[in-house]
Order: sequence, then C-alpha cells, then structure tokens
Amino acid sequence: VNKSSTRWQEWFPILEWTRTYNRKTLSNDAIAAAIVTLMLIPQSLAYALLAGLPAHIGLYASIAPLVIYTVFGSSRVLAVGPVAVVSLMTAAALGKLAPIDSPLYWQYAITLAFLSGTMLLAMGFLRLGFLANFLSHSVVSGFISASAILIAASQLQGLIGIAADGQNLIEILVNIGHQFDRLHPLSLAIGLSTTIFLLWSRAQLKRLLLSLRVAAKIVDITVRVAPVFAIVITTSLAWLLDWEAQGVKLVGSIPQGLIPLTQPTWNWSIWQALAGPALLLSIIGFVESVSVGQTLAAKRKQQVNPNQELVALGASNVGASLTGGFPVTGGFARSAVNFEAGAQTPVAGLMTAFGVLLVAWFFTPLIYFLPKTVLAATIIAAVLSLVDLKYIRATWQFAKPDGFAAGLTLLVTLLLGVEIGLVAGVFASLALVMLHTSKPHIAQVGLVPGTQHFRNIDRHQVITDPQVLSLRIDQSLYFANARVFEAYITQALIEQPLVKEVVLQCSAINDIDFTALESLMVIDERLEQAGVILHLSEVKGFVMDRLAPTPFIKNLRGQVFLSHYAAITTLTADVSKAESSLNQDRA
Amino acid sequence: VNKSSTRWQEWFPILEWTRTYNRKTLSNDAIAAAIVTLMLIPQSLAYALLAGLPAHIGLYASIAPLVIYTVFGSSRVLAVGPVAVVSLMTAAALGKLAPIDSPLYWQYAITLAFLSGTMLLAMGFLRLGFLANFLSHSVVSGFISASAILIAASQLQGLIGIAADGQNLIEILVNIGHQFDRLHPLSLAIGLSTTIFLLWSRAQLKRLLLSLRVAAKIVDITVRVAPVFAIVITTSLAWLLDWEAQGVKLVGSIPQGLIPLTQPTWNWSIWQALAGPALLLSIIGFVESVSVGQTLAAKRKQQVNPNQELVALGASNVGASLTGGFPVTGGFARSAVNFEAGAQTPVAGLMTAFGVLLVAWFFTPLIYFLPKTVLAATIIAAVLSLVDLKYIRATWQFAKPDGFAAGLTLLVTLLLGVEIGLVAGVFASLALVMLHTSKPHIAQVGLVPGTQHFRNIDRHQVITDPQVLSLRIDQSLYFANARVFEAYITQALIEQPLVKEVVLQCSAINDIDFTALESLMVIDERLEQAGVILHLSEVKGFVMDRLAPTPFIKNLRGQVFLSHYAAITTLTADVSKAESSLNQDRA
Repeated sequence: VNKSSTRWQEWFPILEWTRTYNRKTLSNDAIAAAIVTLMLIPQSLAYALLAGLPAHIGLYASIAPLVIYTVFGSSRVLAVGPVAVVSLMTAAALGKLAPIDSPLYWQYAITLAFLSGTMLLAMGFLRLGFLANFLSHSVVSGFISASAILIAASQLQGLIGIAADGQNLIEILVNIGHQFDRLHPLSLAIGLSTTIFLLWSRAQLKRLLLSLRVAAKIVDITVRVAPVFAIVITTSLAWLLDWEAQGVKLVGSIPQGLIPLTQPTWNWSIWQALAGPALLLSIIGFVESVSVGQTLAAKRKQQVNPNQELVALGASNVGASLTGGFPVTGGFARSAVNFEAGAQTPVAGLMTAFGVLLVAWFFTPLIYFLPKTVLAATIIAAVLSLVDLKYIRATWQFAKPDGFAAGLTLLVTLLLGVEIGLVAGVFASLALVMLHTSKPHIAQVGLVPGTQHFRNIDRHQVITDPQVLSLRIDQSLYFANARVFEAYITQALIEQPLVKEVVLQCSAINDIDFTALESLMVIDERLEQAGVILHLSEVKGFVMDRLAPTPFIKNLRGQVFLSHYAAITTLTADVSKAESSLNQDRA
Repeated sequence: VNKSSTRWQEWFPILEWTRTYNRKTLSNDAIAAAIVTLMLIPQSLAYALLAGLPAHIGLYASIAPLVIYTVFGSSRVLAVGPVAVVSLMTAAALGKLAPIDSPLYWQYAITLAFLSGTMLLAMGFLRLGFLANFLSHSVVSGFISASAILIAASQLQGLIGIAADGQNLIEILVNIGHQFDRLHPLSLAIGLSTTIFLLWSRAQLKRLLLSLRVAAKIVDITVRVAPVFAIVITTSLAWLLDWEAQGVKLVGSIPQGLIPLTQPTWNWSIWQALAGPALLLSIIGFVESVSVGQTLAAKRKQQVNPNQELVALGASNVGASLTGGFPVTGGFARSAVNFEAGAQTPVAGLMTAFGVLLVAWFFTPLIYFLPKTVLAATIIAAVLSLVDLKYIRATWQFAKPDGFAAGLTLLVTLLLGVEIGLVAGVFASLALVMLHTSKPHIAQVGLVPGTQHFRNIDRHQVITDPQVLSLRIDQSLYFANARVFEAYITQALIEQPLVKEVVLQCSAINDIDFTALESLMVIDERLEQAGVILHLSEVKGFVMDRLAPTPFIKNLRGQVFLSHYAAITTLTADVSKAESSLNQDRA
C-alpha cells in the first residue's frame, strides 16, 4: 500500500473495505439491511411529521444520504437517516419562517439540509472535528433528555388527534390545553394502546422471549422492530374497519414514483435566518453520530475518524437536499440494530436505501391506511428511552459544575427551546471551567516522612520548616488567576512572618501567559522588599522554555530547582545550617 | 476598633484616613491639588470635546465625582475625572444615537454616566471585581494602544481646523481626506507648534532641567504641567492677535455659574441601546483605574480594594450624571502627578474639585480665547505616550497566543471601532486558553538518576522500564481534552507492545469532570481488553475526593500510589521480580 493510495482511502473509506468484500459479508449485510429497512420506513415517516413535513419526505431523506454515506463514511455500521432530535431542531428552525406542511416549508427544509451539509463538509476539510469536544457529555445529556421530553409532548397532538404546536414545553402544553375539547377518542384509544404495547414490548417482551430461551441477539432485534408489528396490525385494522370514516387521521396518499431532484432556495436572507440553526443542528447531529459510531466501532476494535465523519455526514446532507430530503445524521437506535443484526460494511446501508426506494416506488399505497396516531406512538415510545435523568443526577453527584451544566441545559431547552438551550449549555459549561481556573487552589506543602514526596499540609502528616514557605499552585497561571496568587502570597507572608524563603512547586503549572509573568515579577519585587527570596521547583520544560529568556528568570535572586526535594534540602541547610531543623511540626 | 467599625471603614474608607489627618497632610494635599487642578482644567475641556460634548461639560464632570470618590475610594491618590479612552468610548456609544454637540447628545452622555455608575455599583455590591481579571493584560494593552491611535487621529481634525469624525481609523482618515481642502493653515500652525513643544518638553525639557540639577520630582511635575504653559501662552496670543477674526476656532463663551442638576433620560429603548456600551466602558474604566491605583498604592505599601473601587467609581459616575457630567474614571497621568506631587489622602481630590468649581464660577471668561487646536494638541501629546507597540511585541515573543490576542485587539479596534475591538479581544483570549487546554501536552516520564523525581523522556536523561508506561498529562482532564488522552493512550500501546502496566502521574491534573471520568473508564476498559493494568499516582486530594466514590476507582484493577516513585519501584519489582531491570535505556 503506497502513500497515495492510503490517502485516497482516508477520503474514501469505501476503497478499504471493498477489497475484502465476499459472499459471507454480503449475506450478513443483507440480513441486517432487511431488518433496518423494516425499522426505517415507519421511523422516517414519523420523523418527517415531527419535522413538520409530509410523511413521505421521510422516505426521500432515507435514500440518497445512505448511498453517499456508503462511499464516504468511516463507520462500518452507522445507519444514517432522519433522527428524532435533528428532526425536532428542524421544526424549531423552520417554524418561524413558513407555515407547517406548506411547499415553502419543505423548500426551507431542503435549504437547511444543504446549509448543514455544506457546513459539515467545510468543517471536515478544515479538520475541525475536535471542536465537537467542546460539547461536554453533561450538556449533551441534558440536551438530549430535554429534547426527548419536548418530542414526546409534541407527539401528544398526534396521539390524541388534535393539532398542537410550540417551541418549548409550556407552549406545547398550553396549545394542547386550548384544543383539548377537540380530542378524538378513537384516535386516542388507538395511539394509547399502541404506546402501551410498545413500552410493554420493550420492558416485558424481552424478558418473556429470554425466558423462552430465544437467543439474546434475536430478542434484542425483535424488541427493536416491535413497532413494525404494531404498524402492520393497526394499518390492517384501519383498512378493515374504515377508521378514516370515523375521523382517524391517516397518512393518506403519497406521491408514488421516482425521488424528486431539488435544490436549496438561493435567497441570502433565508440563508442568514437558517445559518445559526443549521450550525447547531450540524454540531448536535455530528456529536450524536460520532458517539454512536465510536461506541459500536470500539466493540469490534474498529476506528471511526471524526473528521472523515464530518465529510461523510456533510455529503449525505447535501445529498438529502438534492433529492427532496431534510437534515439527517447517524441515529442511535437503527445503528445499534444494524450492528446487532450483523452488518459488516456500509453495503448494508446501500441495501437499506434500495429497500426504501422500492417502497417509495411500489408500496406507498400500503402506507395509505397507517394512522398518524400510531406514528406518534412509535415516536413517543422511541424517545422516552432517551430521557436519562439518572445520568444528570450522577453528574451532579460527581461534580456540581457538571450537574449544573446538565441541569441548566435541560431546563433552558425545555422552557425556551432547543436552540437557546444548547447555546446556553455550551456557554455555561465553558464559563464554569473558566471560573474554576480563575480561583485556583493553592496548597502549602510539606515532606511526606520517609519519601522525597511533598503533599498538602492540610491533608497529610508532613514535615515543614517555619522559615521556608513551600507552595504548590494547582492551576496553570494565566490572566484570570494571576492576581489571586499575588494576593495569596502577600497574605501568607503577613501570617507567617518567620518565612525567609518561598519555594513555588510548579508541577501543576502547565502553561503561563504574559499577564502571569508580570504578576510573578510583581511578586518577586514585593518579596525582595520584604527580605524574602523566591525560588521555583519542578518547572515543566514547556513553561521553562517561555520563562528562560525573560527578565524574571534573569533577575531572579533565588534558584530554579529540578525537584522540590532538592529545593527544600538545599534551602533548609542554608537557613539553619543543619538538616536537623526539619522538625515534624504537625502531629 | 471593633468589628462593626471595621465594616463601616470598609464601605467608607474616609473613616480610616480622617482619624490621622493633620496639618502636614493638609499642606501636602493642598500642593498636589493645586498642580492637579492646573492639569485637569485643560484636560477636562479637551476630553469633553473628544467625547463630542461642549468643552465646559468637562468641568462639570470634574467636580462632583471627585467629591464622591473622596468618601468611597480606597486609593489615597487616584485622580478621578474625564480620561481619554473612556471619552473616546463615550463618543463611540453616542455617535449613533444623536448629533454631536446637540442637547440630546448631552442628555444621552448623562444617561450613559448614570448607567455605567449603576452597573459599577451593582458589581461592587455583588463583589464581582474579580471579573475584571478576565481581561488579560495583552488585550488591555492592545486596546489602549489602538484607542490612543484612534484618539490622536480624530484630534487631527481640531489640529488642522476641520471637522472629521468616525468610529474607526479608516472612517476618520477618509473623512479628513474629504475635507482636506478646508484645512485652515493658521490653526494648523498653532496646533502643530503646540504639539511639537509638548513632545519636545517631554523628551528634552526633562533632560535639560535634570542637567540644571533641578530635583527629579520637580522635573517630573514640570514636564507634566507643560501643557498649562502652552495654554496660557496661546490663549494670550489668541486675545492679543485676535486669532478669532482670522478663523481660528476658540473655546468661546462658557455658561458661568453653578453646576447644573440633571437626571438621565428615563427611556427604555435608549437604555437598551446604551447598556452594552455602558458595560464595556465601565469595565475598561474600572480596569484602568484599579491598575493605576494598585501600582501607586504598592509604592507606598498601601492596598486598593477592587470591590470598593467598583462602589466608589460607580457612585462617582452616578454623581457625574446628576451634575451634568459624562463618564469618568481614575486616570493614569493625573494620578501619577498627584502621587509625585505628594498627595497623602483623597482630600487632595476634594481640593481639586473645589479648584475646578472656582474656575467654573469665576474664571470661564479667561478660557474664551483658548484655541481648540491647542486642546487637540494637548490630547495628541498626551495619548501618544499610551501607544506601546513594544509591549505587544514583548507579549508575542513571550507566547504566541498572548501576542495574537494583543495584536487582534489592536487591529480590530483600529479597523472596526472600540466596542467590537474590546469584545473580540476578550473572546479571543478566552478561546485561546480553551484551545490550549483542549490539546494537552502528554509526556512520557522516566526517573532522573539519583533522585526520586520523574521527568519527560524527551527532555531529560532518565531511566525507564519497557514494560511500564509512565505518563504525565499536563492539563486538567475535562470535556474538551478527554478524547485526546483516550486517543494518545490507544496509540502509545500500539507503538509499545511490551507494556504491561500504565501509570498515570496525576500531579498536573488539578480538576476532573464527568466527561473525563467516563473517558478514564473507557480507557481502563480498553486496557483491560489488551491485558494491561492502569494505575494512578500523585492524585491530588481534590481530584481524589471526586474519584473515590465512583465505579472507576472501585473497579480499578491497578493501584493509586501516593508518589510516582512508589508506583514505579512497586511495579518494576512486580514485573521483573528485580529492581535491576531498571536500565538506563536512553543515553
């Protein structure tokens, strides 16, 4: 394998796995594809409705993107297509710009997919995948839980047969309340029983099948495709019992035939309005997709390349926008089923796309009788498992800032909507990190007896010398905390008037900036006036590279010691002319 | 001194220094006040013009704020009043809202002072003084240099006798270019010769006087008040030679008498428009003032309390808004003169206020003949000393991110204006810190021979064991860098297949969040699958408090060692059954 072919493989992972493709891989992929197609058809219809689009747009979004991901994707098993959270964000982005279900709304959905795809591609080419790391798990978790609650609440409309709408929990619930008198009892009965069946199937069917000694893998897949059974049965009943005449809303007739060729709106003001939402949606879609991909890849010791995933998801979304679709990404549920069903390569995705295409061409009349309330039920059952309040509690128990970021994201998303919620979460988590580093922990350290190791005098029984102040600052020194350290030293010298030498153990100083350098110079000057000498120990190479050419080091009256132990043994000898003065003054 | 009186003194520092006030302090203060008053009168007129206001408004802003600062200020020598940068920011804030020199413009300037004062007071009561630490010295330095250049450029208008205007350097220069044919040669001659005299006096007069063996202190003060000589001479010439008739613009007649009682505009939309600029201006004013105050206080071993300064500056600005003034803060030049002239207490400020009041009452006719071009010259000479490009070069040489933040702030301020420039600088400096911590330095460490100390194998000659991978991560572990560490360990194990134990030296991990905890669990799981055991050493108390109750520590197969030396001696014995296997494999 020469260098140039490795490079081609990096951009087109398809070149790698096709070399070892054989009949066994093919049959594995085919089985997985069949199961995923069964799952994808009702999900794609449901998520299109969730996004505010006609149901069949979901099918359009489930063909081209999967084909394109096959070529560019670095995950072997990721199932790309419409997903719940991104569909919700699509609805949030478009709701202000056009009436739901209108041709203009669809046009803007296409434009949103195009912008999101272009942004993802650009980030991929610029190798900006690392930016996703700035979303902490706590924020993502709070956001996903809140989105799932919002989705479930918004789907109550379909479930009870009325039209509710809104960007946040309060708006949705108020809208439902206002229309509660228009509730349709039969729709509610169908939707509710489907929801109960689905929740039961997840909780109990699994246990039942396992007790019947069905293989665990088959049980998992059966439970995942349970919605398909529900849909087949309710669609048949709708046809047999003529539910449409009784007022149950059905999916109805769907345009049959080839997928359309479309293009985004070339309107600058629409692009401006959609740019922010497209960016947020791209990032969430990317983070969700990569984390699913990495989790599954790790189980088979494979790798997922985040920057390549940006390219693949970007191209998939551009593909969606050219074929009448709306924003897509890699979804958790279908990817997991694809993996468990034994998919080996992205060919499974290609076959899934072909299956959806067949349905869109020939079988749309079968979907006519599918009740919308059943689609709402499948969404509710699907997203409720995404609500993970235990996780948020765990983050709070581990560290208050994490819990705060997760809780804030959850609340703001619920109360003010997905876009504000996500932005608030990201800024809060970054601000908390900044605030923490701006108030550094500073420990006075002493020698652990029998070792050459120094620890905090407040936590360990250690040996100290009243004339040598040993300090360890537990933070990189930079502008936000330089002043704090200045104030600490000033105060410490007032409290410990015997001190003649200060040694700063720099083992936790990973970085230093110009403001901090100036602060160190101020400190040295103040210490000089007080007749105290400043020394440094365990300065890291990177920090020393910066400090060495500065007047601070050149004019430093003290020394820079390799280890803190060397500093203390030297200085204690200097001060008291005898190591015996090291007395254990804390019992 | 009981507790409650200490508390009163904290809020009213006047209670502290008045107890020791005597005749000697009084005479010292009086001399300083006389000199500062001489400086302040032309400066206050000039800065009012810079802010876009009639010259005499500068006098109004130089009375009440000084009196109020005397009561609340924690600095003994800070000279409060109109300053160049804050006046420039005032002009930038108001230029969009009302025509320059109009009564509405004045009304909005009063409102801006009120809002700024209220914000400073609120920040003081909430003890938010530490927030100013988030402005790095690099950003402040870039901002001040750029502001000084902008001010000098905008004053070219007064100097050459035409009206230029603009929010940034390009606008200002283009405006001057357009009106260049209206240049007034006599005004230019007067302004230019004044500027040259002032610059000469700073550079040469000092040397001259020193060579005449005049005391250094008196030399410093003489140089500082040189503008007063220039003003007296040019004003006299304007009167004698009737420059007004020849087209030289003079300050003209000033309303004589009591300072007016005013109040802000109570208009919500104006408040909204001014809130952002007021906040930026408050922060810059506060930072400038506190840094001047602390620098001067340190020279006399006094202290300045940042939160009290917020209160004092806030009250001063509210005072300015109630007496017809515009935003004020503690200025560098006058405070330094006040200090050098021997001011002992804020009584000097009180006397200065009285001096200005006398001028406003009785002596405004004397100011009638002062040419505006001379005021422009004094501003240009004053601000040019604030341009410190050497400082920016020093930050760049010390660390690229510092230099980048300083340079960016300088350029954006020059090209897009003060408000965007400051915000861009703050965000850039914070983003650079975040970016740096998101790409942590990870070192493989080995034992320094003859010590118990471990250092980077790439920088030091150290002892390592091929079966024990010793890693030190030089950053707190949190969401933005957790993935990087995961990837590093995976890669390291591929490159070093002999490794059986990994020891993570945690001396530089000051903090850990939930995302990083999850990452550590993933790493431990992967290592387990690879048959490698993960250990920790030198975990800080704070970090261990967080980790101890988690499943990560409970299920950890390895140990948590107090010191890295203990870890390596234990593990090397374990692995090779003999310490002799420690071989110096790097020569």
